[in-house]
Amino acid sequence: MAAPQLTTRILRRLLASGVTGRAEKLLARLHPADLAPLLSGLSPDELRVVLDLLFRHHRAATTLMELPPEMLPQIIDTLPDDRNADVIARLETDDMLEFVEWIPEERRDGILSLLPAAKSEELRKAELYPASSAGRAMTTRFVALNEEMTAQAAIDRIRAEGDDNDSILYLYVVDDQFRLRGVVPIRRLVAARPDRVCRDLMIPDPISVPAEADQEEVAKLVARYNLLAVPVIDANADDRMLGVITVDDVIDVITEEATEDIYHLAGLSEEDRVFTPATLSVRKRLPWLILNLGTAFTSAWVVGLFERSLEEVVALAILMPVVAGMGGNGGVQTLTVITRGIALGEIEFSSGFRTMIKEMSVGIAVGLTIGVLGGAMAYFWRGNTYLGVVLFLSMTITMTIAGLLGALVPLTLKALRQDPALGSGVIVTTFTDIFGFFSFLGIATLLIEKLN
Amino acid sequence: MAAPQLTTRILRRLLASGVTGRAEKLLARLHPADLAPLLSGLSPDELRVVLDLLFRHHRAATTLMELPPEMLPQIIDTLPDDRNADVIARLETDDMLEFVEWIPEERRDGILSLLPAAKSEELRKAELYPASSAGRAMTTRFVALNEEMTAQAAIDRIRAEGDDNDSILYLYVVDDQFRLRGVVPIRRLVAARPDRVCRDLMIPDPISVPAEADQEEVAKLVARYNLLAVPVIDANADDRMLGVITVDDVIDVITEEATEDIYHLAGLSEEDRVFTPATLSVRKRLPWLILNLGTAFTSAWVVGLFERSLEEVVALAILMPVVAGMGGNGGVQTLTVITRGIALGEIEFSSGFRTMIKEMSVGIAVGLTIGVLGGAMAYFWRGNTYLGVVLFLSMTITMTIAGLLGALVPLTLKALRQDPALGSGVIVTTFTDIFGFFSFLGIATLLIEKLN
Repeated sequence: MAAPQLTTRILRRLLASGVTGRAEKLLARLHPADLAPLLSGLSPDELRVVLDLLFRHHRAATTLMELPPEMLPQIIDTLPDDRNADVIARLETDDMLEFVEWIPEERRDGILSLLPAAKSEELRKAELYPASSAGRAMTTRFVALNEEMTAQAAIDRIRAEGDDNDSILYLYVVDDQFRLRGVVPIRRLVAARPDRVCRDLMIPDPISVPAEADQEEVAKLVARYNLLAVPVIDANADDRMLGVITVDDVIDVITEEATEDIYHLAGLSEEDRVFTPATLSVRKRLPWLILNLGTAFTSAWVVGLFERSLEEVVALAILMPVVAGMGGNGGVQTLTVITRGIALGEIEFSSGFRTMIKEMSVGIAVGLTIGVLGGAMAYFWRGNTYLGVVLFLSMTITMTIAGLLGALVPLTLKALRQDPALGSGVIVTTFTDIFGFFSFLGIATLLIEKLN
Repeated sequence: MAAPQLTTRILRRLLASGVTGRAEKLLARLHPADLAPLLSGLSPDELRVVLDLLFRHHRAATTLMELPPEMLPQIIDTLPDDRNADVIARLETDDMLEFVEWIPEERRDGILSLLPAAKSEELRKAELYPASSAGRAMTTRFVALNEEMTAQAAIDRIRAEGDDNDSILYLYVVDDQFRLRGVVPIRRLVAARPDRVCRDLMIPDPISVPAEADQEEVAKLVARYNLLAVPVIDANADDRMLGVITVDDVIDVITEEATEDIYHLAGLSEEDRVFTPATLSVRKRLPWLILNLGTAFTSAWVVGLFERSLEEVVALAILMPVVAGMGGNGGVQTLTVITRGIALGEIEFSSGFRTMIKEMSVGIAVGLTIGVLGGAMAYFWRGNTYLGVVLFLSMTITMTIAGLLGALVPLTLKALRQDPALGSGVIVTTFTDIFGFFSFLGIATLLIEKLN
C-alpha cells in the first residue's frame, strides 16, 4: 500500500517511455484493491493502455470491482461492448448485477447479448429479486450435505468440489426437498470422528433469511449474532435453500448504510462522492439547497412580522441569529443521537416515550445553562438587563423545543416506516429557526418599551 | 427477536407472580443478543433477580457483553465485587478489557484482586498495549503449525484442540522462532491430500499487523482485502506471532468508527447515547454548545459592525439569516462528502488539490443558482431591485467560500493528523456565518442609498 500518487507517477513514466513490459510487471505485483486507485489518476489514453494490460492478464474484472461504483460509468464508457461483456462474465452474481446497473440504457442490450448463455440466465434470475435484497447479494455456490452423511463423506465432498473457494466456512445440511436443516462449521467437521453423521454434528435450525429480505436486515443479523455467513432461502417455494451471503459482502453493506445515514443528515445523495464530476454534484445538491432556500425565506417571513420592533431596537437584529442558530445546534445534536440510535438498534434499550422525555429534559437543562450564559453576554455587551432576559427566555424555550423535535421527528418518520435520517435535518432546523426567531422577537415585542 | 417491550412485559409479570421457574425458562430460550435489551426495561429489584438467574446458568457474562457498553456502569453498580470478578473471569481478553474500563476507579482494585491468577496475568499483559490497538482486540487462541507438518498431522492437531472453537478459519504456519510464515485456510487443509506438507498448502507472506496498530487500521485492511481474520505480530520481538483479530470484532470497529464520524460532525461525545442518563448527556453536550455560543456571538459582533445600515434598512435584518444559513448548508454538504470520503479512503481516488478545485467549482455553480433564485425572491418580496442584487452577490460569494472551506478544513485537519470530522463543523459554519453576514451587510452598505 505505497502512496497511490507515487505509484501512479511511476506507472505514467513507464507508459510514456513505452516500456509496457515493466508497467506490466508493476501491475502484476499489485493487489486489485491497490490497483484500482491508480486508474483514477490516468489520462484517458493511459487508462486505455492499462486496461488493455489488465485484460491480457484477466485481472480487469476484479480490479474494476474494487473501484468505488460511482466511477464505473467512466470506465464502461472507454471500453467496447465485447470487453464490457468479458468483465461481466467473470464476475460473481452480486458484482455482475452492480456492474450492469451502471451501464447506460442505450448500450445495455448490446453488451448483454454478448454474454455466454449460462451467464445471461444467471443474471436474469438474480434480477428477479428486488433491489438491495438478499437474493441479489448471495452467492449460489455452497456445499450441501444430507443428515445421514458421515464426516468423512462430507470431507470427500469438499475435496471433490476442488480447491478454488477458500472462504467456505460452513456446510449446509438439507433434506431431500433441499430445505435447510442445519449448519456444520467446517472446523467441527475436521475435529469430528470420521464415522459421525452430519445430523449429530450440525447446529440445528440456523438463522436464515428469505431472498426478498433487505440487505440491511441481513447486515443487522450478522452484526447482532456474530455470524460469518447467512443462508438464504426461498420463502415462496417450501423454504428451499438458494444461496449464502458471506460476511465480506455484509461489511460493504454496513459501510454503505453508515454513509447513507451521514449523507441523509446533510441532504446528500449517495452518488455524490469526492471523485464524482462537479456537474453531477451540483445537480444532486441543488434540490436540497433549493428546499432549504424555501424554508429560509419562511423563517425570514416570520422575522418580517416583527419589522416594527426591529426598526425600534436594532440590537434585536444583531442577537436574533444567536437564538435560532443555537436552537439548530441543539436540535441537530439530539437528532444525531436518535437517528444513529435507531440505525444501531439502541432504541431497543429504551422506548420512544422515555427517549422523548429524556431529550426534552436535556433540552431544558441545556437551554437554561446556555440561556443564562447568552443572556449575561447580551447584558454585558448591550448594557440592557431586559435584553438579557429576553435572550434567556427565548433560548430556553427554543432549546427545549429543539430537544423535543430532535427526538420526535426521526421517531415519527420511523413509525411511518420512512428513513429517519432523510429530511429530518431540514424539518428540525426549519422549526428551530422559526421558534427561535418567533420566541425571541415575540418576547422582545412584549417588552419593547424596556429595550430602548 | 420478538419486540423486546413485549418480552419485557411477560418477564416482569412472571417475576411479579414469583414463578421464577418459568422466568428462568424464558431467559434460557433467548440468545444473549436478544436478552440484553430486556435488562434495560427492568426496575433495580427485578434486574437483581434476573441477574441472579443468569449467574446461576453462567450466562451473565455473555449477556452483559451484548449490552451497549455505555450501560455497563449501571449494571456493575448493582453487582457485588465477587460477581463482577466472576463476569470478568469468563470473558475473552478484548471483552475483559472493555468491562474493566467501565468499573469505577474506587472499586477496581477490590474487584481485580478476586480474579484467578491466570486471568489477572492475561489482563495485565493486554493492558500493556495502547488503547484501541490491535493487541487489545486480538484473541491469543489460534492453531499454529510448522512448515513440515502434513495435512493429516494438522488435522490431528485441530482435533486435539477440542471442539469448543467453531470459528477457526485459518491455521497459521510459524517457524521455530514463532515468526509467521504463511496461512492455511482450513478449507484448503480439508481438500488437500493427507500427505501434503503445510509449506505447499500455505499462502506465504500473509498480511499481518503489529500489536500497536490502531484497530481502525485493522478494520480498513479487512474491508479492503476482504479478510476474515488478521494475524497480529510483535514488531518489537522478531515479529513473533501473538494472536488473531477476527472479522466479528472488526464489524464492531467499523460500526463504532462510523458512529464516531457522525457524532463528531454534530459535536457529540461517543458516550452520549439514547439510553444514557439525561445528566450525562447534558454534561457531554454543554462544552460544544458553549463553544458554539461563543462563535455565534462573534458573528453577532460582525453584524453589529453594520448597526447603522440595519437601522436604515430593516429589510437587511430580515434577509441576512438567509445568506448565512444557506452558506452553512452548502458548507456542511461539502464537509460531509469530504470527511466521509477520507474515512472510506475515497480520497485515494482523487487528490487534495483536485478535490478542493472541484468543491469550489460546485460552490460557485450552486451559489450562482441559489443566488439568482434568492435574489429574485427578495426582489419580488420587498420590491427593490438592488436588494435582489445584494442577495445574489453575497450568496454567490458565501457559497463559493463554503465549498472551499468545506474541503479545506477537513483536508487540513487530516494533513495535521487530526480527526477530520472533529471540530470541522464548527469551524466551517462559523466562517460561513461570518462571511455571509459580512458580505451581505458589506455590499448592502456600499449600495445603501439605493436600498431605501
